Amino acid sequence: MAGNAEAPDTVCPVARSLDVVGDRWTVLVLREMFMGAVRFEEIQIQTQATPQMLTTRLKSLEASGMIERHPYSEKPLRHEYRLTEKGRAFYPVIYALRGWGETWFKDESEEVAVRFVHRECGHDVGLGTVCPECGVQVERKDLDATMSDQFAAERAERRAAFKAPAKTAVLGAGSGFTGDGFITNGN
Amino acid sequence: MAGNAEAPDTVCPVARSLDVVGDRWTVLVLREMFMGAVRFEEIQIQTQATPQMLTTRLKSLEASGMIERHPYSEKPLRHEYRLTEKGRAFYPVIYALRGWGETWFKDESEEVAVRFVHRECGHDVGLGTVCPECGVQVERKDLDATMSDQFAAERAERRAAFKAPAKTAVLGAGSGFTGDGFITNGN
Repeated sequence: MAGNAEAPDTVCPVARSLDVVGDRWTVLVLREMFMGAVRFEEIQIQTQATPQMLTTRLKSLEASGMIERHPYSEKPLRHEYRLTEKGRAFYPVIYALRGWGETWFKDESEEVAVRFVHRECGHDVGLGTVCPECGVQVERKDLDATMSDQFAAERAERRAAFKAPAKTAVLGAGSGFTGDGFITNGN
Repeated sequence: MAGNAEAPDTVCPVARSLDVVGDRWTVLVLREMFMGAVRFEEIQIQTQATPQMLTTRLKSLEASGMIERHPYSEKPLRHEYRLTEKGRAFYPVIYALRGWGETWFKDESEEVAVRFVHRECGHDVGLGTVCPECGVQVERKDLDATMSDQFAAERAERRAAFKAPAKTAVLGAGSGFTGDGFITNGN
């Protein structure tokens, strides 16, 4: 196992997982990739990580086999980042963090940030993993996601701030930012 | 929300959760409390955190409402730590980390560290949240846990190392260590 020098040798799967993902920035990067982001700038914009922080996390995620780099441009050479099977398998952890966060860190004025609807029956699955209408267990692939207006606005603001004139030269042509991957906004 | 100075304001429930639990030691402390530990020394022994690190995490977990302190001795005043409802609600995240870790960080010589059996039907639920025998969704309260010999041995070793003669004076009387709370070993 890729070791963390601080971690004791243990068969505990929770401790072993935390050796790889026991850092909030790493989990934020994964969240963003599950939102559909594949390029450095997209991930940077929405996680608000510095380029250095993001570079470290992407290297570490690549070293632990959770993401892979694929070239999308030859001149200049640029890469996209894609989740591997091991990376995609981390989704239940993100989903559980989402359920806990929606339950304990929201006030009444705030909507659920991303609603998941069971594609087959059209019912909102709430925060659980079983469709309340059909009674069947659902996975991410069975669900359609819709972002709340508030979350969509917050993300658009971060994007606009990044693309403001002062930063145009940094972003340059071919940054290929395409917005929120596979999640639609309700409007 | 209890803010992390680095975190952007966001309605994302994953980011908000990570403000509180986005640190591997915090999650290890919670894992240990879900194993049944309630006292400082027990948590320290099994997480291998230094007293300073553990004190910081316990204070932060208390501040965020995930654990509460209860006195168990008046003279000297000593406290136990117990999960609140908000703390207990974090269990699905630990369970998801376990499932991912068992799948991706184990070789063939290693057993599942903790087996969960559906109490009602006696079948092993594996790494999922639906009993493969009954087809019903199960929660922690529906499951009996049994530790593998390897995991039990590793935990006993850590305990023995902590209680070795050189440390007796530190641990002293009344440390109240009672072993692995609500999990039984298979033997």
